[in-house]
Amino acid sequence: MRYPIMRPMLLWCVAVVVVWPASAEQPVTGGAAEPDRDRITQVSVINALLLGQFDGRVPFSGLLADGDFGLGTLDRLDGELVVVDGRGYQIKSDGKVVEVGPDATIPFAVVTPFDRDGELPCPAVDSLAELERRLDGVVGHPNNFVAVRIDAELAAITLRSVHPQSKPYRPIDSRADFQSVWKRENLRGTFVGIRSPRWAHGITVPGYHWHFLAADRRSGGHVLDCHLRGGTILYDVCGSWLVKLDESADFNGVNLSTDLGDELDRIERLRGGPADGK
Amino acid sequence: MRYPIMRPMLLWCVAVVVVWPASAEQPVTGGAAEPDRDRITQVSVINALLLGQFDGRVPFSGLLADGDFGLGTLDRLDGELVVVDGRGYQIKSDGKVVEVGPDATIPFAVVTPFDRDGELPCPAVDSLAELERRLDGVVGHPNNFVAVRIDAELAAITLRSVHPQSKPYRPIDSRADFQSVWKRENLRGTFVGIRSPRWAHGITVPGYHWHFLAADRRSGGHVLDCHLRGGTILYDVCGSWLVKLDESADFNGVNLSTDLGDELDRIERLRGGPADGK
Repeated sequence: MRYPIMRPMLLWCVAVVVVWPASAEQPVTGGAAEPDRDRITQVSVINALLLGQFDGRVPFSGLLADGDFGLGTLDRLDGELVVVDGRGYQIKSDGKVVEVGPDATIPFAVVTPFDRDGELPCPAVDSLAELERRLDGVVGHPNNFVAVRIDAELAAITLRSVHPQSKPYRPIDSRADFQSVWKRENLRGTFVGIRSPRWAHGITVPGYHWHFLAADRRSGGHVLDCHLRGGTILYDVCGSWLVKLDESADFNGVNLSTDLGDELDRIERLRGGPADGK
Repeated sequence: MRYPIMRPMLLWCVAVVVVWPASAEQPVTGGAAEPDRDRITQVSVINALLLGQFDGRVPFSGLLADGDFGLGTLDRLDGELVVVDGRGYQIKSDGKVVEVGPDATIPFAVVTPFDRDGELPCPAVDSLAELERRLDGVVGHPNNFVAVRIDAELAAITLRSVHPQSKPYRPIDSRADFQSVWKRENLRGTFVGIRSPRWAHGITVPGYHWHFLAADRRSGGHVLDCHLRGGTILYDVCGSWLVKLDESADFNGVNLSTDLGDELDRIERLRGGPADGK
């Protein structure tokens, strides 16, 4: 053999070529592409949405990079967004459920990589308010953000979704016909909830904010009320809060310090009218 | 030659070994270890600090991982923190400047990796208020966070630092002797400024917040007023805002929704007394 040293060198080189890429790439996939799993991330500011900033700014694929669980709305305020198990569902104002594609754009949303910090059985409750009171007693952490997932058996649920808007956009007016409301009975499904601290009012929805997706993926929406028979509650206390802002003239042209607390409460918590049974 | 293919293979293998690590490592250093350069990060909530949450929670080395430029305070409210060019300086209430070590802990701070989005000459101004008015006209973006660096020639500057506190901590009381104030004349140095949007009041210091470090590293502090001859202004508009929260019972035991705006204004903007010439 003319080059006795070449055989081990060649083997070593082949080993390097085969092994190196895998080990070198590992930190990459664990790096920028992976969010901090203890972080909750929101796109935009709730007051900007209330004031008519309905243009989608972040692609749904980008939102998923920040979390597999959460809620929001879509470009032009076209329905309610539910993100669960890394998939997105758009519940349109006619009640139809459509899976969200990676290029759909998002004007407002809150997501986190869901990790279970605690689990408990879901009590039977007659109202959403009672559910929230029970949860507060267990979850604590009033100054932290908490994601709550409930896989539930329901006697009834009152849902709503919002109508898509056209430009020029106007602020959401709770007195106008901005939503459809409907009721479903005897079903199973998943509550996607975000509880935000009171001190974050004006920036996000303070207190609990619930969206819902039926187990059969055929109904869902923003939850206005519910009657639960039972289920399982999982929750995730989040250690940090990231707010993604827009540097556009549109975003910078609105007064986000306006106190819209009463308007938000009417929009997010009260039924706009009787259930229309859609 | 017995293995004619081996010479080019060997060269290729050597090339892979030499070149691959550099190219493969590039995304790693741009990954988890590197913060999003357009993000501004804060430790805790300003109302928590005002209410006496003075225990350092984040090591200074961890703060630097989120940014090389910013301001804050140290464990037990022991002085003003200036972060500039990736180094930290503690300005104690007796006026002494000490470089901050990696294990020092931080109860409240705001930092960002400083990238120049804009640059302009610093005008000669008689007051901090006039400087801020001029800056607002240039920087715009009232709903975004902006980091501002001014390397300046000063006719005069009024500075303060705060006294370290002992447990049990009490809320900062602007009527009590919580700070020392002094004045320096005819010097050069760097202003480290963070401008936060008004809508973030209660969570961070709204408007401008300025700390200062003299070029000779022998004085500094929280800026109460200044008389500038000129210099250079650099600014960095930040696209997202991360708030690092504490999950402790202490943090969750205070009412962060309390309106402390007037108290904050007295603490951050007004001189506690005449300059004592230290």
